[in-house]
Amino acid sequence: MESSIKVILEPKSKGLSDCPGYKFAATSVDIRDNKSSQLDLAIIVGDKSLKSAGVFTLNDVKAAPVVLSMNVLEESAESIGGIVINSGNANACTGHQGLADAKEMSTSAQVCSNIGFPFYVCSTGRIGRKLPINKICEGIDTCSKALNNSEANSEDVAKAILTSDTLIKQKTARIIYNDQTFTIAGIAKGAGMIDPNMATMLAFIVTDLDGTHINLQKSLSQANSKSFNSISIDGDMSTNDTVLLLANGDAEVDFSCDKNLQKAFDQALEKVCHNLAQKIVSDGEKITKVVTLKIQGCTSTQTAEKIARSIGTSLLVKTSFYGSDPNWGRIVDAAGYAKAGININKLDLDYETIPVLRAGIPQEHHAKQWKEIVSKKNFSIHLNLNQGSSKYTFTTTDLSEAYVTFNKSE
Amino acid sequence: MESSIKVILEPKSKGLSDCPGYKFAATSVDIRDNKSSQLDLAIIVGDKSLKSAGVFTLNDVKAAPVVLSMNVLEESAESIGGIVINSGNANACTGHQGLADAKEMSTSAQVCSNIGFPFYVCSTGRIGRKLPINKICEGIDTCSKALNNSEANSEDVAKAILTSDTLIKQKTARIIYNDQTFTIAGIAKGAGMIDPNMATMLAFIVTDLDGTHINLQKSLSQANSKSFNSISIDGDMSTNDTVLLLANGDAEVDFSCDKNLQKAFDQALEKVCHNLAQKIVSDGEKITKVVTLKIQGCTSTQTAEKIARSIGTSLLVKTSFYGSDPNWGRIVDAAGYAKAGININKLDLDYETIPVLRAGIPQEHHAKQWKEIVSKKNFSIHLNLNQGSSKYTFTTTDLSEAYVTFNKSE
Repeated sequence: MESSIKVILEPKSKGLSDCPGYKFAATSVDIRDNKSSQLDLAIIVGDKSLKSAGVFTLNDVKAAPVVLSMNVLEESAESIGGIVINSGNANACTGHQGLADAKEMSTSAQVCSNIGFPFYVCSTGRIGRKLPINKICEGIDTCSKALNNSEANSEDVAKAILTSDTLIKQKTARIIYNDQTFTIAGIAKGAGMIDPNMATMLAFIVTDLDGTHINLQKSLSQANSKSFNSISIDGDMSTNDTVLLLANGDAEVDFSCDKNLQKAFDQALEKVCHNLAQKIVSDGEKITKVVTLKIQGCTSTQTAEKIARSIGTSLLVKTSFYGSDPNWGRIVDAAGYAKAGININKLDLDYETIPVLRAGIPQEHHAKQWKEIVSKKNFSIHLNLNQGSSKYTFTTTDLSEAYVTFNKSE
Repeated sequence: MESSIKVILEPKSKGLSDCPGYKFAATSVDIRDNKSSQLDLAIIVGDKSLKSAGVFTLNDVKAAPVVLSMNVLEESAESIGGIVINSGNANACTGHQGLADAKEMSTSAQVCSNIGFPFYVCSTGRIGRKLPINKICEGIDTCSKALNNSEANSEDVAKAILTSDTLIKQKTARIIYNDQTFTIAGIAKGAGMIDPNMATMLAFIVTDLDGTHINLQKSLSQANSKSFNSISIDGDMSTNDTVLLLANGDAEVDFSCDKNLQKAFDQALEKVCHNLAQKIVSDGEKITKVVTLKIQGCTSTQTAEKIARSIGTSLLVKTSFYGSDPNWGRIVDAAGYAKAGININKLDLDYETIPVLRAGIPQEHHAKQWKEIVSKKNFSIHLNLNQGSSKYTFTTTDLSEAYVTFNKSE
């Protein structure tokens, strides 16, 4: 019998509460020490022990919670209690004390929630400040007593992980498999320091499917490279980036039991990650435009990626996006200094469907249409090297005066 | 007999006219087509044929004049007529026509000036526009008739090569060798697109010493890597970067005839290049600060350079410089994503002489002094990895709202 499978994205996600078998809670402990009641601490747990996978920042300088969580993943990937998260302080560059504090957060969550399995720890916020660990432990106690699977608590968690984000970021996919429905629900935060390799972003994804750590890890790494790793706001990769995937097995089906289900799972996970990544870019600090770069005709995916990143992080390209200036010369210049072996005489460039270069020759008679396209809030740029069949897609933003004003001091 | 040698930098350079045996002229041909009388065309020639060396952009997309000049260097490095330069149009991404136009500029200069040797060609300005070659050829004729070695003409040439620069850039070094004095005089333009590998910058250096192409090239490449290649304004490398060194041998001494003279020549050339590079950074588009990054204690120079460039091009670091915010966390973060194997627990960081980190631990009791230093217009940052003995120095700038405003459209 052929299995019937469909993957759909929920038009309106209710966040983690979309997925059965998880509880959550968030609270405010004033981590920023500014007498605000902003939610800044959250816990996510399973009804029973969880299987898991994780992807972490490649920065040499890893925050204490990243070091701890990488260790938890290595030692206990298939028997996890949950995740404890704080915003407002990154617990990065905080030495031995920072590691001790991250450990205390993990242990405190495990003890207070009365769940006998280790917790992942995530922190995001300013670098180089000691965590207010006492306030945080009190907050963990408060959260532990408030854990439930309500939509309200779920939304509070999505709020508590934010820093300079202006909106919560949630997305849910359903896999309809014969007469069963499985769920993958994710939340994320982004806003600044977003670049290659998930900078200053956190994402937490839960599913009711079952799966081994090895299979979950494979699926997550793959989805991550096509989503969170293909966006850039400011070219800075943070010390704290973390994506975690939890599987509680409530549905009593292992996603790898059937090749088609495996495929559907990968597809659904990628869709959720991609949607969250796009939400992160669109909510980038003081951006006014989102631009998708589609690089094709390359000799390798690596080459295509190198060119995409070079264009997508060029200050001159990004400021011209901001100014709605069809300055294709800056795009070609940035593609050229990627040093990927471009031949200008083979280059085709298009703003959406409008030709800009054909075999390196400017198509000036379209100049009015160029201007129309780059004046839009969202548009795509297509660069074909005509040297091979490999391609890469990268999403970037413009660079505004307001970004500089916003970031010139914290 | 021990030779007596001294290298001095002229406190007040008179530009190329400081060096005997060269003539120059500049004129205005309205290349920008804006009815302005701005100088935009210049010629530099020797009294006789010149020996030469050159360094060019590493961008895959090389402007037509770069392609032509690389060819001139390859074929005629030791019998050069001079250099013809235009500003206002880069003659980049202009296809076969662009190459034909660059060739016409070179031939026209050779014919009009009645010098029987090939000319280098340099162009700088907007990418992707056809050169107004007729106006340019008329201008070359005008310049050829006005060639002399006056200070006034020399200053006109320094002006004619500028684009968005606000100041002319000239520096002269003298080598006093026993009872003789030799000269190295240079001019440059910069302003935007300045990054690794000399982006959108031109520099022309002349000497009255003699030397083979091979020796001149060795000295120039070395000086270039320690000067023009160690500065960044916006991280963009241009299609047109060129540094040319001309030697007319008027002094009738080959600089390689004596090991000490060779050393003095290298030193003087590096001083001139370094001074011009610093002038370029200080005159960067809409910058308010110049920051020198001194990275040390690395396992290799490459590692030190990688870290310096990562910090020096980080948007978040540059905006924090602009805001006079001692946000050392962003510096450490950028050092970390250079992926050069940093160990945070060994890091020492200083704002000038004030400790920021010792073995990765913040020295918060100095926080007031941090703020004082980063509020200055010029300051240095010292990062010691304590992993080896290699080091690298890199000069960068802040990033202001005005930079964005200035570059959002052309």
